[in-house]
This record gives sequence, C-alpha cells and structure tokens, in this order.
Amino acid sequence: MSTVRNILFIMADQLRWDYLSCYGHPTLKTPNIDRLAERGVRFDAAYVQSPVCGPSRASYYTGRTAFSHGATWNQVPLPIGELTMGDYLRPLGMRTAVVGKTHMKADLEGMARLGLTRETEIGMMIAEPGFDPYERDDGLHPDGLLKRRGGILSYNDWLRNLGYDGDNPWNSWANSAEGENGEILSGWHLRNSNLPARIKEEHSETAYMTNRAMEFIDETGANPWLLHLSYIKPHWPYIAPAPYHNLYGPNSFIAPNRNDNERLKANPVYRAFMDMDVSQSFSNDEVRETVLSGYMGLIKQIDDHLGRLFEFLETSGRMDDTMIVFTSDHGDYLGDHWLGEKELFHEESVRVPLVIYDPRSAADQTRGRVENRLVEAIDLLPTFLDAKDIEGNNHRLEGHSLTPLLHGQETPDWRDAVFSEIDYAFYEARKTLNVNAGDARAYMIRTERWKYIYFKGFSPQLFDLKNDPNELVDLGLNGAFETIRHEMKDRLLERLIDRKNRTTMTDEQVIRARDREKETGILIGVF
Amino acid sequence: MSTVRNILFIMADQLRWDYLSCYGHPTLKTPNIDRLAERGVRFDAAYVQSPVCGPSRASYYTGRTAFSHGATWNQVPLPIGELTMGDYLRPLGMRTAVVGKTHMKADLEGMARLGLTRETEIGMMIAEPGFDPYERDDGLHPDGLLKRRGGILSYNDWLRNLGYDGDNPWNSWANSAEGENGEILSGWHLRNSNLPARIKEEHSETAYMTNRAMEFIDETGANPWLLHLSYIKPHWPYIAPAPYHNLYGPNSFIAPNRNDNERLKANPVYRAFMDMDVSQSFSNDEVRETVLSGYMGLIKQIDDHLGRLFEFLETSGRMDDTMIVFTSDHGDYLGDHWLGEKELFHEESVRVPLVIYDPRSAADQTRGRVENRLVEAIDLLPTFLDAKDIEGNNHRLEGHSLTPLLHGQETPDWRDAVFSEIDYAFYEARKTLNVNAGDARAYMIRTERWKYIYFKGFSPQLFDLKNDPNELVDLGLNGAFETIRHEMKDRLLERLIDRKNRTTMTDEQVIRARDREKETGILIGVF
Repeated sequence: MSTVRNILFIMADQLRWDYLSCYGHPTLKTPNIDRLAERGVRFDAAYVQSPVCGPSRASYYTGRTAFSHGATWNQVPLPIGELTMGDYLRPLGMRTAVVGKTHMKADLEGMARLGLTRETEIGMMIAEPGFDPYERDDGLHPDGLLKRRGGILSYNDWLRNLGYDGDNPWNSWANSAEGENGEILSGWHLRNSNLPARIKEEHSETAYMTNRAMEFIDETGANPWLLHLSYIKPHWPYIAPAPYHNLYGPNSFIAPNRNDNERLKANPVYRAFMDMDVSQSFSNDEVRETVLSGYMGLIKQIDDHLGRLFEFLETSGRMDDTMIVFTSDHGDYLGDHWLGEKELFHEESVRVPLVIYDPRSAADQTRGRVENRLVEAIDLLPTFLDAKDIEGNNHRLEGHSLTPLLHGQETPDWRDAVFSEIDYAFYEARKTLNVNAGDARAYMIRTERWKYIYFKGFSPQLFDLKNDPNELVDLGLNGAFETIRHEMKDRLLERLIDRKNRTTMTDEQVIRARDREKETGILIGVF
Repeated sequence: MSTVRNILFIMADQLRWDYLSCYGHPTLKTPNIDRLAERGVRFDAAYVQSPVCGPSRASYYTGRTAFSHGATWNQVPLPIGELTMGDYLRPLGMRTAVVGKTHMKADLEGMARLGLTRETEIGMMIAEPGFDPYERDDGLHPDGLLKRRGGILSYNDWLRNLGYDGDNPWNSWANSAEGENGEILSGWHLRNSNLPARIKEEHSETAYMTNRAMEFIDETGANPWLLHLSYIKPHWPYIAPAPYHNLYGPNSFIAPNRNDNERLKANPVYRAFMDMDVSQSFSNDEVRETVLSGYMGLIKQIDDHLGRLFEFLETSGRMDDTMIVFTSDHGDYLGDHWLGEKELFHEESVRVPLVIYDPRSAADQTRGRVENRLVEAIDLLPTFLDAKDIEGNNHRLEGHSLTPLLHGQETPDWRDAVFSEIDYAFYEARKTLNVNAGDARAYMIRTERWKYIYFKGFSPQLFDLKNDPNELVDLGLNGAFETIRHEMKDRLLERLIDRKNRTTMTDEQVIRARDREKETGILIGVF
C-alpha cells in the first residue's frame, strides 16, 4: 500500500514504558502489542512533553509543548487559539474523533469573550478540543464529579441497560469490588486493587471502548478517518475485572527501583514530592504489590482487547490503509524512587512506549525495527500530517515528522535532546515549598547520556544515564559536573527559544512579506 | 485627587529617548514634555519589549512579551486569544479608544476558524485589537498600500475638504515637498527631509491627531476613558511642515555615536544589519544631517501640540483626574553605530522616553523625580489596572505595576534586568546570513551594568555599560568575560521561564483547584 488513508491513534493512560513484554517486562506478556511492534517500529526512547495527563495530551493533540500551548495542568483549559489535530485533518475530509479520554477542558471564558457557546457547530468543535466526541469519556466519574457534570455518561446508560443498577454504575460496579458479605469495596482504595471488579469482563471500560472503536470504524465506512482510541486504564482506580485481577502475584513483580541514598540530601522539590501522601503510600511494599496486581491485569486486558481490535482491522482490510500508533500519556512511579503517581522526570514517569505501524510499502524495510533515536510526543501530529501530505505548518508545530525513521532514511540532523516540563502548582509540594502559584515550574532536558532538571527557584538535578541508568545518584550539586550542568542549561535555553510563537503567519508568508511591502510604495532608507 | 478616572496614553513613533530636553538633548527644547516630567516621574531606564513598531506596541497593549503574545513583527497578526487593554478596562465601563497608530493586524484566519467577521460588534472588537478605532490611522499610506486597503482614510477626507486635492493628499501634500518648479518631491526620499511639507502646519498629521484627541475627550464627557493618542511622527516619512522643517541645522545636531572599531570584527548579525541599504544610507553624514532637520522638527512640533493639549486638559479640569503617560514604541539609530532604523539593541533603539503624570495625591512626593530603576513597556498595563483597582491578572500579565515607583514606595525586590527581543526574519539580514524564517531570533537582557545579546545560531554581544556607556566595544567573544556571559545567559533563561503561559486559569483558581478535586470524590494514593 502506498498511502495512508486512516489513522488509528491508540493511547493507554498512565502506562509505563517498561510494562510490556516487547519493552522487556519479564512476566507481563503483551503479545498483541508485541506483534504490532514486529510489523512496525518500536521506539525505545520516546518522551512525553509533560508527565501528567492534561498537558501531555494537549501536546500530543496540538503538536506543541506545554510551554507553548499553555494548558499546563489537568484542569487548565486549552486556549481557544490553539489548533488541534482536527483543525489540520478535517479540511481534508477526514472524520476526526475520540473514543475515550482526552482530558481537555474547553476555554469557556475565551469562548464567551468571542460570543461563542457550545450550542453552535463551531462552539462544539472548540469546546471539545481536538476531536468529535464520538464517545468522549474521561474515565473519572466519582459521584460528586458526575453530578457536577449533570450526571450524563453513555457508559453508565449502557451498563444500566445490561442490568447494573444505581445512579453511577461506573463507580459502584465497574470500579468497585465486593466484600465477603456483599459490601461494596471502592476501587478508589488501593487496598482493593487486587480484588475483581463487580462487573463482567466484557462489560468493563476497556471492553466497551474497544467495541465503540469498532463501531466507529464500521460506521465511518469508506470515509477517511482519524480515531483517537484513548483507553482509560491502567490509570486509577486500579481495579480489573476477573480473571485479570489476579493473573499477577508476587512472583510476577519486578523489584522497586529505589535505594536509601535517594532519601538523603534529596533535591528539595523531589523531597517535597516524596513527602506527599501518595508517595508515602506507594513506598509501602504492601500497597505497591496490591496495586501491581490490578495495574498489570489492566494492561494485560488492554492487550487482549487490542488483539480483538487488530483482528477486526485485519478482517475488514483496514490493516492495509491504516497507520496505527500505540502509546501512553505518561508512566507511573508505582513506588520507584519512593514516589507514587507521575509528575517528576525519572524514566518511570516521563518515558512512554511508542509503537507505530505504517502500512506503506516504504516502511517495509523497518518492520520489526527498534528505534533508539530520541523522539517526543509532539512528533506524532507532524507524522500524521506528513502521511496525509499536509504542509506549511512549521510556524506552529514544534515536533518533527517521524516518517524518515519509519522509512529507514538517514537523519543526520535529528534532535539530540528531548524536553519535558511540569507545572506543579496544583500539588501539596508547592505548599510545602512555599512557592507562588506561578513559580512552581520544572523543566527537563535529556540527551543520550545526561538528564538535567531545572527547578525554578531551587537547585537542579542531574543524572548520568550511562553510569547510572536507574537514576539513583543525583549529581545536581556535585562540583565535578558543573561543566555538564552548564552545557545542559544552555541546551534548555536553546530549546525554550525554539518555541514557535509566530503562529499567525507562516514561514512562507514571512519570506514574501518584505517584497510585498516594497510593492506598496514604502521606501526605507532611500536618499 | 485620590483616584484616577481617565488615562491618556500618549505615544510618539520612533522617538529616541535622548531627543527631548528633559532627557538631556542640548539643543532640541521640549518644554511641554519637560513640564509634564516636572509634574510627574521621568523614567530614565525604560525599555521596549522589541525595537520595532508592531511587536513593541502589542507588548504595550497586552502587557506581555513578544515571546508570549506572538505578534513578532509588524505584519504578524495578534493571535485572537490575546487580551488587550480594552478587554481589561471596558468591563469597568471605560471607553477605550485610539487616535492614531496601533500597527495591530487582525487575526483574520483565527477569526474565520471561529466563524467571526468584522461585521459583528465582537468581530470588530477583535479585528481592531486593543482599542475602539475612534481615529485609527497607522500613518503609512503610500498609494499602493492605500489602494489595497480600499482607499479609505479619514485624514485624506479632511484634507480634501480643506482643498488639498488628489486621490491621496496624505502622500502628495502632507508627506511631500515642492521643488523650485512646483514639482512634487516625495517625503519617502531622505534627501527631501529638510524641506517643508506641502501643507499648512495646522493641517499636518500631528495637528490633526491632537484635534481628534480633544474631540474624543470632549465627546466622551463624564464617562471614564482611556485614550491612546498615538502620534505617527517622528517616524518616516521624515518631513515636517514649515516652520518646523528648518528649525534645526548643523549647529543643533549631536555627533553620531559610532567609531571605526565597530566595523572591525563585528558580530555577524550586527554586520548583516550594517550591510543593509538603510544602514549604508544613514552612515553617510549628508543623509544623517538632512534627516535630522526633519526628525528634530517633527519632535518639536509634537511638543508644541502637546502644549496645546495639556492646556486643554488643564482648562477642562482633566489634569485632576487623568493619568498621563508619554512614551515611544522604540528609537531610531539615525546613523549611530553605522545603522539606520531600529531593530537591534543599542540604547538608541531599545530605550525610550517614559514620563508618567499621576494626579493622585499619593504621587505628590515624587513629582519631578527622575527614576533610575529598570522598567519595561509591559509595566504600563499593570499600572493602569492598578490605578483602576483591577486585580487577578497575574497569570497573564508579565510586567509590574509602576504605582510603587510613582508613589515613592520601597521596592526591595524590583527587577534587576530588562528584556527585549527581535524576530529579524523580515529583513535582508536574514537572507545575508542564510537563516531560516523561524530561526532569525535575538534576545537582549540588560542589567544596570551589562547588556548581553543572544543571537540564535551566532555568537553573542556583550557590553559593559559602566565602562563603555556608548556601547562601542563588543565583549561578546572576549575570553575575560566568559563568567559574565554565563551569568547573563542564566538570567535570560530565567526570564524566558518567567513567561506567563497558563493564561486560561488564574493563580487563585489554581490554589483552589486541588481542594475542589477532593470534593468530587477523587482519592489519590489512599490505601
């Protein structure tokens, strides 16, 4: 096949890079993702622009860093002027939709200033940044939040039709377990993470979203499409339906990546994160191992449903004309480095799996390849535009098309550093550190060998990934590495300066501009 | 008076900081601006965010650096999501209007994406970024450009009513002189800059704009207002009406600030600017001195009309309730450093006059003060909001209110460096240097003593302003100053990181966010 008609952009939520067998997990076998990697390229050094859902996703969808797009955390609306995948692809007639999570919040204030409401077609497009909401479901529906949103959730309707009763079966069935006496045990409590969810496997969120993806593809027929199939799991609530809840036990777990030295003289921001409740919790082996059963089961379940989906694509002929991407929005510390959740910049948090299957014959020579060059989340949108022959967006997009890597081409000028960042204003750590809401910023720059983290107002971190691949020795204050820190800081400056801010005028328009000015009769400096 | 009701924000275009008598010019006497300085504060270290009209003005109007607002050069539209003065002040019932130039271009593509046209009230507000176009006139109307804009210009209509004939009396009368045989000599040609314009003084642009400002104030009556009176001159075409065209001759000119060493081993970007036609032109003393007659005359004329305006304000009682600002959008090299125009970062280009008269009694103690603290163009909008008691915009505004300086308060944490930048993609210099349209960037950071200029892809410049206040010795490659350059580069990084990108969520909302999340039932890390 020589062209890409459709794009299937699959994302798992909070999936670590190393919890797939193709990435080396010794006990968690993911044959369907592995098989996709055998047919495509597996990127072994892929990084997100921010290790937290909202800003990471906004970067995937806009092709721009959080530093540029400004949706710096989960609840921060994407500014109305930022273009997303749909803005680029819809003009081609591609149906661009989501099944699952985007975590994007509409810029309602920006819309109101321009007199826009959700009720109009344009308002709807802007309010659902990025994708038609074919099955928009951000996957977090505790009762309070669901009520605030008006109580509407398609998945709940579906469950109720199947006989799962109550106001919010998402919470009480799909994300809860049952005690010995029939009492409901919430999936929000980590101690229940190795119990089976109160739901049949085929009625779980992962099964439902896979079904909805196939329905979308069926329904869209011959019309070209981009589908963002965005699984809600293995993100918390960490709870899997049987039989996935207890496929993995102590013999299956890899050891935590941490040592006692990390707690001595820790960088102050790292220290503040270690001191947060969630980190304390995951530093406890009982918690970690209880969660791991659920976490690993949820991943295994996704892999099984991807097998079902890939079979469907094969049968329907879609493997011939569809580019398939599998990735994640960030990782999960799971107790490594004495941390829970994500947010900081160790590999467990900021590195993600990335597999791309390109149906074009030009990609035949790279099938099964493991690619070590450094890539970033913002490279995907340029890759998609490249596959659809859309040009002229260099003034907005900050990543690079991966086509040369997919097609086995030389790339002598490929980037030699990746960049990520966090706005930690929303965390307890900001309060602990007594930092203003606008100053809780950290920036990572990572080369093949070094990882440097700049914390605004605090000392930096530095890791030597060659001699310390597990990032257990922070060289941020070590006098012997001052030159390296200087070099890395210079790279960070260069990267920030590379930000694309002239978004309202293309490079081509700039090149023509002065000539056009001369045509108007403006004469500068002529005596 | 204890409150500020109105704000009169006066800007001259391309006025150097040192071409006013209160700033030390030995022969150009500007008694009316001097008198304003005696009644207010004269800022002796005021800098623009970019030494070229469009981006500099966009920074004044948005309170944000060009790095953030993205209107990086004259023809680059201000992105639709950027808020301007009117967005902040109109909700208070203030009429916010312009008489004269803004150089802002509407983001028509961004508007079209949202279904907005100029025809609606909101569309009009967005298309005229910043101000109601009471008398919008960007002051550059060569025939070709006027035709492209549909030929409409109020000033031309006014002139025609007064008997100045032709399609474009702006060009053929107000900005042209006459030869001995009645032939028209264009003001676009610098050799005509010391000839009188073909127009009565009271019909010139400066007179007209002053009239229009008074009409606006009269007409607005008791309704509070912000008026941006934005003079078109002394920007080119450099041509003044009699008697201003020849008030100043060779005995009045200050010597050019340049020496031969600057041309030896010049920084490559500086070299490329020196090689441009306009720089070659102004490096010729005949050109420089011809232009100086016109340039100085135009400034003297503005000062005289400001005298008329201030008298009007005094008589009408507006001096009691109106904050008055006088400043410029950038300077003019006028042959200094072998350059013409502006764009680079010598003091002649990037430093501007800034006088603020604050009617409040709290400002009585600073009347006549010369303020040496470093201030920036982006400080004005916060100052205006402060004067009107508008709070809560720290997540967008990048400058600092000058109220403490106006009211004689201590400011122990005041900034110790100012920042400016340029996108030189639009210049011949970019072609000479063979730089891509997205890479033609330069950034200045200046402390009390040092000025460091980072050119993307080229070596930096460094000046020691204590020992070399005229900036004639570039230390950018001098090995003895490596530590200083490192320090300045670190400051530049810090400044870029200070960019306000989380524009859709206030600091207060951030601080409350996590608590609100807990209320919804989301539990993170609880075992």
